[in-house]
Amino acid sequence: MPQKPIICTVDVVLLCLQGGVLQVALLQRDKPPFAGGYALPGGYIHPEQDTDALDAAVRMLSEKTGLSSPYLEQLGTFSGAARDPRGWSISIVYYALVPAELIEPDRTPGLQLQPVNQLKTLPFDHKEIVLAAVDRVRNKSSYSSLPVYLCGEQFTLPRLQAVYEAILGEPINKVSFRRKMDELDMLEAVDGALESGRANRPAQIYRLKSQYRNRLALSGRSMTGKVEH
Amino acid sequence: MPQKPIICTVDVVLLCLQGGVLQVALLQRDKPPFAGGYALPGGYIHPEQDTDALDAAVRMLSEKTGLSSPYLEQLGTFSGAARDPRGWSISIVYYALVPAELIEPDRTPGLQLQPVNQLKTLPFDHKEIVLAAVDRVRNKSSYSSLPVYLCGEQFTLPRLQAVYEAILGEPINKVSFRRKMDELDMLEAVDGALESGRANRPAQIYRLKSQYRNRLALSGRSMTGKVEH
Repeated sequence: MPQKPIICTVDVVLLCLQGGVLQVALLQRDKPPFAGGYALPGGYIHPEQDTDALDAAVRMLSEKTGLSSPYLEQLGTFSGAARDPRGWSISIVYYALVPAELIEPDRTPGLQLQPVNQLKTLPFDHKEIVLAAVDRVRNKSSYSSLPVYLCGEQFTLPRLQAVYEAILGEPINKVSFRRKMDELDMLEAVDGALESGRANRPAQIYRLKSQYRNRLALSGRSMTGKVEH
Repeated sequence: MPQKPIICTVDVVLLCLQGGVLQVALLQRDKPPFAGGYALPGGYIHPEQDTDALDAAVRMLSEKTGLSSPYLEQLGTFSGAARDPRGWSISIVYYALVPAELIEPDRTPGLQLQPVNQLKTLPFDHKEIVLAAVDRVRNKSSYSSLPVYLCGEQFTLPRLQAVYEAILGEPINKVSFRRKMDELDMLEAVDGALESGRANRPAQIYRLKSQYRNRLALSGRSMTGKVEH
Protein backbone atom coordinates (compact mmCIF):
# COMPACT_ATOMS: atom_id res chain seq x y z
CA MET A 1 0.00 0.00 0.00
CA PRO A 2 1.49 3.39 -0.92
CA GLN A 3 2.13 5.64 2.03
CA LYS A 4 -0.51 8.32 2.59
CA PRO A 5 0.82 11.83 2.03
CA ILE A 6 1.12 14.09 5.06
CA ILE A 7 -1.87 16.46 5.44
CA CYS A 8 -0.54 20.02 5.03
CA THR A 9 -2.77 22.78 6.38
CA VAL A 10 -2.68 26.36 7.59
CA ASP A 11 -4.78 27.69 10.47
CA VAL A 12 -5.30 31.26 11.61
CA VAL A 13 -5.93 32.45 15.17
CA LEU A 14 -7.89 35.65 14.60
CA LEU A 15 -8.18 37.70 17.79
CA CYS A 16 -10.14 40.83 18.66
CA LEU A 17 -11.22 42.69 21.77
CA GLN A 18 -14.94 42.80 22.48
CA GLY A 19 -16.53 43.85 25.76
CA GLY A 20 -13.02 44.39 27.10
CA VAL A 21 -12.26 40.70 26.60
CA LEU A 22 -9.95 38.99 24.11
CA GLN A 23 -12.03 36.85 21.74
CA VAL A 24 -11.12 34.32 19.07
CA ALA A 25 -13.00 33.89 15.79
CA LEU A 26 -14.19 30.35 15.16
CA LEU A 27 -15.99 28.94 12.12
CA GLN A 28 -18.53 26.16 12.08
CA ARG A 29 -17.14 23.20 10.13
CA ASP A 30 -19.32 21.95 7.31
CA LYS A 31 -17.37 18.76 6.61
CA PRO A 32 -16.08 15.86 8.69
CA PRO A 33 -14.12 15.40 10.81
CA PHE A 34 -15.88 17.36 13.55
CA ALA A 35 -18.65 18.56 11.17
CA GLY A 36 -20.81 21.12 12.97
CA GLY A 37 -18.07 21.93 15.48
CA TYR A 38 -16.47 25.36 15.77
CA ALA A 39 -12.79 25.46 14.80
CA LEU A 40 -10.09 27.88 13.66
CA PRO A 41 -10.43 29.22 10.11
CA GLY A 42 -8.02 27.15 8.06
CA GLY A 43 -7.62 24.55 5.39
CA TYR A 44 -5.35 22.73 3.01
CA ILE A 45 -2.37 24.43 1.40
CA HIS A 46 -2.96 24.60 -2.37
CA PRO A 47 0.50 24.21 -3.95
CA GLU A 48 -0.80 25.28 -7.37
CA GLN A 49 -2.14 28.52 -5.96
CA ASP A 50 -0.24 29.48 -2.80
CA THR A 51 3.29 30.88 -3.05
CA ASP A 52 4.04 29.88 0.53
CA ALA A 53 2.25 29.17 3.81
CA LEU A 54 1.76 32.86 4.62
CA ASP A 55 0.13 33.31 1.24
CA ALA A 56 -2.16 30.36 2.02
CA ALA A 57 -3.10 31.97 5.36
CA VAL A 58 -3.97 35.25 3.64
CA ARG A 59 -6.14 33.39 1.11
CA MET A 60 -7.86 31.35 3.84
CA LEU A 61 -8.66 34.42 5.90
CA SER A 62 -10.03 36.25 2.90
CA GLU A 63 -12.14 33.31 1.67
CA LYS A 64 -13.51 32.35 5.05
CA THR A 65 -13.88 35.62 6.93
CA GLY A 66 -13.69 38.31 4.23
CA LEU A 67 -10.72 39.96 5.98
CA SER A 68 -7.97 41.24 3.73
CA SER A 69 -4.32 41.29 4.77
CA PRO A 70 -4.18 42.10 8.46
CA TYR A 71 -0.77 41.87 10.15
CA LEU A 72 -0.11 38.11 10.28
CA GLU A 73 2.67 36.50 12.25
CA GLN A 74 3.68 32.86 12.37
CA LEU A 75 2.91 31.33 15.75
CA GLY A 76 4.44 27.94 15.11
CA THR A 77 3.74 24.59 13.57
CA PHE A 78 1.70 21.86 15.19
CA SER A 79 2.24 18.40 13.80
CA GLY A 80 2.01 14.70 14.33
CA ALA A 81 0.12 11.46 14.01
CA ALA A 82 -2.41 12.19 16.76
CA ARG A 83 -3.91 15.62 16.07
CA ASP A 84 -6.11 14.83 13.04
CA PRO A 85 -8.16 11.62 12.68
CA ARG A 86 -7.46 11.62 8.93
CA GLY A 87 -3.74 10.97 9.39
CA TRP A 88 -0.31 12.49 10.04
CA SER A 89 -0.76 16.24 9.70
CA ILE A 90 1.03 19.56 9.80
CA SER A 91 -0.68 22.83 10.63
CA ILE A 92 1.36 25.98 10.14
CA VAL A 93 -0.37 28.48 12.40
CA TYR A 94 -0.53 32.26 12.01
CA TYR A 95 -2.18 34.78 14.29
CA ALA A 96 -3.70 38.16 13.59
CA LEU A 97 -5.14 40.90 15.76
CA VAL A 98 -7.91 43.06 14.28
CA PRO A 99 -10.43 45.63 15.49
CA ALA A 100 -13.69 43.88 16.46
CA GLU A 101 -15.61 46.00 13.94
CA LEU A 102 -13.87 44.15 11.10
CA ILE A 103 -15.22 40.78 12.21
CA GLU A 104 -18.91 40.66 11.49
CA PRO A 105 -20.46 37.41 12.67
CA ASP A 106 -23.83 38.61 11.31
CA ARG A 107 -22.52 38.83 7.78
CA THR A 108 -20.35 35.71 7.85
CA PRO A 109 -22.46 32.59 8.30
CA GLY A 110 -21.02 30.17 10.81
CA LEU A 111 -18.58 32.69 12.34
CA GLN A 112 -18.60 33.00 16.10
CA LEU A 113 -16.51 34.90 18.65
CA GLN A 114 -15.56 33.05 21.84
CA PRO A 115 -13.81 34.64 24.84
CA VAL A 116 -10.36 33.04 25.07
CA ASN A 117 -10.69 32.68 28.83
CA GLN A 118 -13.82 30.52 28.56
CA LEU A 119 -13.02 28.26 25.65
CA LYS A 120 -14.93 25.06 25.33
CA THR A 121 -13.28 21.96 23.90
CA LEU A 122 -12.37 22.60 20.26
CA PRO A 123 -11.78 20.16 17.38
CA PHE A 124 -8.24 18.86 16.72
CA ASP A 125 -5.65 20.58 18.98
CA HIS A 126 -7.22 23.96 18.32
CA LYS A 127 -7.73 24.82 21.97
CA GLU A 128 -4.02 24.26 22.63
CA ILE A 129 -3.23 26.41 19.58
CA VAL A 130 -5.49 29.28 20.72
CA LEU A 131 -3.96 29.21 24.20
CA ALA A 132 -0.44 29.28 22.72
CA ALA A 133 -1.42 32.27 20.56
CA VAL A 134 -2.90 34.12 23.53
CA ASP A 135 0.25 33.44 25.51
CA ARG A 136 2.40 34.81 22.67
CA VAL A 137 0.19 37.89 22.27
CA ARG A 138 0.27 38.64 26.03
CA ASN A 139 4.04 38.32 26.20
CA LYS A 140 4.72 40.27 23.05
CA SER A 141 2.25 43.02 23.95
CA SER A 142 4.20 43.88 27.07
CA TYR A 143 7.11 45.21 25.01
CA SER A 144 5.67 46.04 21.60
CA SER A 145 3.08 47.85 19.52
CA LEU A 146 1.11 44.63 18.91
CA PRO A 147 -2.10 45.68 20.79
CA VAL A 148 -2.48 48.71 18.48
CA TYR A 149 -3.80 46.31 15.80
CA LEU A 150 -6.83 45.73 18.05
CA CYS A 151 -7.77 49.42 17.83
CA GLY A 152 -9.28 51.08 14.84
CA GLU A 153 -7.09 53.30 12.71
CA GLN A 154 -7.38 56.24 15.12
CA PHE A 155 -7.57 56.24 18.92
CA THR A 156 -6.84 58.29 22.02
CA LEU A 157 -4.12 57.36 24.51
CA PRO A 158 -6.65 56.47 27.26
CA ARG A 159 -8.37 54.10 24.80
CA LEU A 160 -5.02 52.52 23.82
CA GLN A 161 -4.05 52.15 27.47
CA ALA A 162 -7.34 50.34 28.14
CA VAL A 163 -6.53 47.95 25.28
CA TYR A 164 -3.04 47.23 26.68
CA GLU A 165 -4.56 46.68 30.13
CA ALA A 166 -7.17 44.28 28.74
CA ILE A 167 -4.45 42.20 27.04
CA LEU A 168 -1.96 42.27 29.89
CA GLY A 169 -4.71 41.63 32.44
CA GLU A 170 -3.54 44.28 34.88
CA PRO A 171 -3.72 48.05 35.35
CA ILE A 172 -0.78 50.07 34.01
CA ASN A 173 0.38 53.29 35.63
CA LYS A 174 -0.56 56.18 33.31
CA VAL A 175 2.85 57.87 33.50
CA SER A 176 4.73 54.62 32.78
CA PHE A 177 2.36 53.87 29.92
CA ARG A 178 2.98 57.25 28.28
CA ARG A 179 6.73 56.88 28.79
CA LYS A 180 6.61 53.45 27.13
CA MET A 181 4.64 54.89 24.18
CA ASP A 182 7.26 57.63 23.82
CA GLU A 183 10.03 55.03 23.92
CA LEU A 184 8.35 52.87 21.28
CA ASP A 185 8.03 56.02 19.14
CA MET A 186 5.32 54.41 17.04
CA LEU A 187 2.44 56.91 17.28
CA GLU A 188 1.77 60.23 15.62
CA ALA A 189 -0.86 62.79 16.56
CA VAL A 190 -3.57 63.30 13.94
CA ASP A 191 -3.41 67.05 13.24
CA GLY A 192 -6.27 68.92 14.84
CA ALA A 193 -8.16 65.74 15.78
CA LEU A 194 -9.51 65.74 19.32
CA GLU A 195 -12.06 63.54 21.04
CA SER A 196 -14.37 65.69 23.14
CA GLY A 197 -17.05 63.24 24.18
CA ARG A 198 -16.00 63.20 27.81
CA ALA A 199 -16.38 65.52 30.78
CA ASN A 200 -12.62 66.14 31.03
CA ARG A 201 -10.64 68.11 28.48
CA PRO A 202 -10.60 66.80 24.89
CA ALA A 203 -8.09 64.02 24.19
CA GLN A 204 -5.68 64.09 21.26
CA ILE A 205 -6.30 61.44 18.63
CA TYR A 206 -3.35 59.33 17.47
CA ARG A 207 -2.59 56.81 14.77
CA LEU A 208 0.24 54.35 14.09
CA LYS A 209 3.18 55.83 12.15
CA SER A 210 3.09 54.45 8.63
CA GLN A 211 6.35 52.48 9.02
CA TYR A 212 4.72 50.41 11.79
CA ARG A 213 1.51 49.47 9.98
CA ASN A 214 3.05 46.15 8.93
CA ARG A 215 5.89 45.85 11.38
CA LEU A 216 6.00 45.88 15.16
CA ALA A 217 7.70 48.58 17.22
CA LEU A 218 9.63 46.85 20.00
CA SER A 219 11.17 47.74 23.33
CA GLY A 220 13.92 45.91 25.21
CA ARG A 221 11.96 46.07 28.42
CA SER A 222 8.64 44.57 29.42
CA MET A 223 5.87 46.85 30.73
CA THR A 224 5.15 44.32 33.45
CA GLY A 225 7.33 42.05 35.51
CA LYS A 226 6.04 39.07 33.59
CA VAL A 227 8.20 36.93 31.39
CA GLU A 228 7.90 34.77 28.35
CA HIS A 229 7.36 31.07 28.86
CA MET B 1 -1.71 14.17 -13.75
CA PRO B 2 -2.15 13.71 -10.00
CA GLN B 3 -0.85 16.60 -7.92
CA LYS B 4 2.59 16.03 -6.41
CA PRO B 5 2.49 15.80 -2.62
CA ILE B 6 4.09 18.62 -0.65
CA ILE B 7 7.65 17.77 0.47
CA CYS B 8 7.64 17.68 4.29
CA THR B 9 11.02 17.99 5.98
CA VAL B 10 12.65 18.93 9.25
CA ASP B 11 15.96 20.83 9.53
CA VAL B 12 18.09 21.50 12.58
CA VAL B 13 20.30 24.54 13.19
CA LEU B 14 22.94 23.15 15.52
CA LEU B 15 25.04 25.91 17.08
CA CYS B 16 28.15 25.86 19.23
CA LEU B 17 30.85 28.25 20.34
CA GLN B 18 34.36 27.59 19.09
CA GLY B 19 37.26 30.02 19.23
CA GLY B 20 34.89 32.52 20.86
CA VAL B 21 32.73 32.53 17.73
CA LEU B 22 29.26 31.11 17.16
CA GLN B 23 29.44 28.27 14.63
CA VAL B 24 26.82 26.24 12.80
CA ALA B 25 27.15 22.54 12.00
CA LEU B 26 26.70 21.71 8.33
CA LEU B 27 26.67 18.33 6.62
CA GLN B 28 27.87 17.51 3.14
CA ARG B 29 24.91 16.36 1.02
CA ASP B 30 25.39 13.00 -0.68
CA LYS B 31 22.31 13.24 -2.93
CA PRO B 32 20.90 15.80 -5.36
CA PRO B 33 19.77 18.50 -5.26
CA PHE B 34 22.98 20.31 -4.28
CA ALA B 35 24.96 17.05 -3.93
CA GLY B 36 28.38 17.81 -2.45
CA GLY B 37 27.15 21.10 -0.93
CA TYR B 38 27.10 21.75 2.81
CA ALA B 39 23.60 22.14 4.29
CA LEU B 40 21.73 21.91 7.58
CA PRO B 41 21.27 18.40 8.98
CA GLY B 42 17.72 17.45 8.07
CA GLY B 43 15.50 15.25 6.01
CA TYR B 44 12.04 13.93 5.30
CA ILE B 45 9.51 13.39 8.05
CA HIS B 46 8.76 9.66 8.32
CA PRO B 47 5.09 9.45 9.29
CA GLU B 48 5.36 5.74 10.11
CA GLN B 49 8.19 6.39 12.53
CA ASP B 50 8.01 9.97 13.85
CA THR B 51 5.35 10.91 16.40
CA ASP B 52 5.59 14.58 15.45
CA ALA B 53 8.06 17.04 13.91
CA LEU B 54 10.09 17.43 17.11
CA ASP B 55 10.46 13.65 17.23
CA ALA B 56 11.67 13.73 13.60
CA ALA B 57 14.23 16.42 14.52
CA VAL B 58 15.55 14.33 17.42
CA ARG B 59 15.87 11.31 15.11
CA MET B 60 17.60 13.34 12.39
CA LEU B 61 20.12 14.82 14.81
CA SER B 62 20.91 11.45 16.28
CA GLU B 63 21.23 9.70 12.89
CA LYS B 64 23.26 12.43 11.23
CA THR B 65 25.42 13.88 14.00
CA GLY B 66 25.27 11.28 16.79
CA LEU B 67 23.91 13.86 19.24
CA SER B 68 21.19 12.67 21.59
CA SER B 69 18.42 14.95 22.83
CA PRO B 70 19.89 18.39 23.34
CA TYR B 71 17.44 21.20 24.20
CA LEU B 72 15.57 21.75 20.91
CA GLU B 73 13.27 24.66 20.23
CA GLN B 74 11.13 25.31 17.18
CA LEU B 75 12.44 28.28 15.21
CA GLY B 76 9.68 28.42 12.64
CA THR B 77 8.57 26.90 9.38
CA PHE B 78 9.92 27.83 5.98
CA SER B 79 7.73 26.92 3.06
CA GLY B 80 6.79 27.56 -0.53
CA ALA B 81 7.16 26.74 -4.17
CA ALA B 82 10.58 28.37 -4.60
CA ARG B 83 12.84 27.02 -1.86
CA ASP B 84 13.41 23.45 -3.15
CA PRO B 85 13.93 22.57 -6.82
CA ARG B 86 12.01 19.31 -6.28
CA GLY B 87 8.72 21.09 -5.62
CA TRP B 88 6.52 22.83 -3.05
CA SER B 89 8.11 22.15 0.32
CA ILE B 90 7.79 22.70 4.03
CA SER B 91 10.72 22.70 6.42
CA ILE B 92 9.91 22.78 10.12
CA VAL B 93 13.10 24.13 11.67
CA TYR B 94 14.44 23.51 15.16
CA TYR B 95 17.56 24.92 16.75
CA ALA B 96 19.85 23.55 19.43
CA LEU B 97 22.86 24.92 21.31
CA VAL B 98 25.48 22.46 22.45
CA PRO B 99 29.01 22.54 23.86
CA ALA B 100 31.54 22.39 21.00
CA GLU B 101 33.08 19.24 22.52
CA LEU B 102 29.91 17.31 21.62
CA ILE B 103 30.28 18.03 17.92
CA GLU B 104 33.16 16.07 16.55
CA PRO B 105 33.77 16.80 12.90
CA ASP B 106 36.62 14.28 12.92
CA ARG B 107 34.33 11.41 13.87
CA THR B 108 31.36 12.42 11.72
CA PRO B 109 32.26 12.25 8.03
CA GLY B 110 31.04 15.26 6.09
CA LEU B 111 30.36 17.38 9.17
CA GLN B 112 31.79 20.89 9.16
CA LEU B 113 31.56 23.90 11.47
CA GLN B 114 31.18 27.31 9.83
CA PRO B 115 31.28 30.65 11.69
CA VAL B 116 27.80 32.18 11.38
CA ASN B 117 29.28 35.59 10.63
CA GLN B 118 31.11 34.34 7.54
CA LEU B 119 28.59 32.01 5.94
CA LYS B 120 29.01 31.20 2.30
CA THR B 121 25.98 30.64 0.12
CA LEU B 122 24.14 27.55 1.32
CA PRO B 123 21.74 25.20 -0.53
CA PHE B 124 18.00 25.91 -0.42
CA ASP B 125 17.15 28.85 1.90
CA HIS B 126 19.49 27.47 4.56
CA LYS B 127 21.50 30.67 4.89
CA GLU B 128 18.33 32.64 5.62
CA ILE B 129 17.34 29.94 8.14
CA VAL B 130 20.72 30.05 9.94
CA LEU B 131 20.60 33.85 10.14
CA ALA B 132 17.05 33.71 11.56
CA ALA B 133 18.21 31.18 14.16
CA VAL B 134 21.20 33.34 15.14
CA ASP B 135 18.91 36.34 15.47
CA ARG B 136 16.57 34.38 17.71
CA VAL B 137 19.44 33.04 19.83
CA ARG B 138 20.95 36.53 20.27
CA ASN B 139 17.63 38.07 21.29
CA LYS B 140 16.64 35.26 23.58
CA SER B 141 20.08 35.07 25.20
CA SER B 142 19.78 38.62 26.45
CA TYR B 143 17.02 37.68 28.88
CA SER B 144 17.37 33.94 29.41
CA SER B 145 19.54 30.98 30.37
CA LEU B 146 19.88 29.89 26.72
CA PRO B 147 23.69 30.44 26.43
CA VAL B 148 24.29 27.99 29.27
CA TYR B 149 23.63 25.16 26.81
CA LEU B 150 26.84 26.21 25.01
CA CYS B 151 28.90 25.47 28.12
CA GLY B 152 29.77 22.05 29.37
CA GLU B 153 27.96 20.73 32.42
CA GLN B 154 30.12 22.71 34.85
CA PHE B 155 31.60 26.18 34.49
CA THR B 156 32.78 29.24 36.41
CA LEU B 157 30.96 32.59 36.29
CA PRO B 158 33.78 34.30 34.34
CA ARG B 159 33.56 31.51 31.73
CA LEU B 160 29.74 31.86 31.50
CA GLN B 161 30.05 35.64 31.22
CA ALA B 162 32.47 35.19 28.31
CA VAL B 163 29.92 32.93 26.60
CA TYR B 164 27.14 35.52 27.04
CA GLU B 165 29.45 38.22 25.70
CA ALA B 166 30.37 36.14 22.66
CA ILE B 167 26.68 35.62 21.82
CA LEU B 168 25.55 39.17 22.53
CA GLY B 169 28.58 40.59 20.77
CA GLU B 170 29.38 43.15 23.44
CA PRO B 171 31.07 43.32 26.85
CA ILE B 172 28.79 43.01 29.89
CA ASN B 173 29.50 44.76 33.18
CA LYS B 174 30.52 42.11 35.73
CA VAL B 175 28.24 43.42 38.49
CA SER B 176 25.20 43.59 36.16
CA PHE B 177 25.98 40.12 34.88
CA ARG B 178 26.08 38.62 38.38
CA ARG B 179 22.87 40.46 39.32
CA LYS B 180 21.18 39.04 36.23
CA MET B 181 22.36 35.53 37.09
CA ASP B 182 20.95 35.96 40.61
CA GLU B 183 17.66 37.17 39.15
CA LEU B 184 17.42 34.21 36.75
CA ASP B 185 18.10 31.94 39.76
CA MET B 186 19.12 29.10 37.47
CA LEU B 187 22.59 28.18 38.79
CA GLU B 188 23.79 26.19 41.75
CA ALA B 189 27.30 26.00 43.14
CA VAL B 190 28.94 22.59 42.87
CA ASP B 191 29.92 21.77 46.46
CA GLY B 192 33.61 22.16 47.05
CA ALA B 193 34.45 22.55 43.34
CA LEU B 194 36.84 25.37 42.58
CA GLU B 195 38.84 26.20 39.51
CA SER B 196 42.33 27.20 40.48
CA GLY B 197 44.15 27.34 37.18
CA ARG B 198 44.50 31.12 37.23
CA ALA B 199 46.70 33.61 39.01
CA ASN B 200 43.79 35.17 40.92
CA ARG B 201 41.88 33.36 43.66
CA PRO B 202 40.11 30.11 42.73
CA ALA B 203 36.69 30.51 41.11
CA GLN B 204 33.60 28.61 42.29
CA ILE B 205 32.25 26.10 39.79
CA TYR B 206 28.55 26.17 38.97
CA ARG B 207 26.02 24.06 37.10
CA LEU B 208 22.46 24.57 35.88
CA LYS B 209 19.77 23.72 38.44
CA SER B 210 18.12 20.47 37.41
CA GLN B 211 14.73 22.12 36.70
CA TYR B 212 16.36 24.22 33.97
CA ARG B 213 18.15 21.42 32.11
CA ASN B 214 15.28 21.16 29.63
CA ARG B 215 13.53 24.48 30.16
CA LEU B 216 14.80 28.05 29.92
CA ALA B 217 15.00 30.44 32.85
CA LEU B 218 13.68 33.83 31.68
CA SER B 219 13.84 37.42 32.80
CA GLY B 220 11.45 40.24 31.89
CA ARG B 221 14.33 42.53 31.11
CA SER B 222 17.01 42.38 28.45
CA MET B 223 20.68 42.48 29.47
CA THR B 224 21.37 44.90 26.65
CA GLY B 225 19.36 47.72 25.15
CA LYS B 226 18.77 45.63 22.06
CA VAL B 227 15.35 44.43 21.03
CA GLU B 228 13.80 41.58 19.12
CA HIS B 229 13.13 42.07 15.45
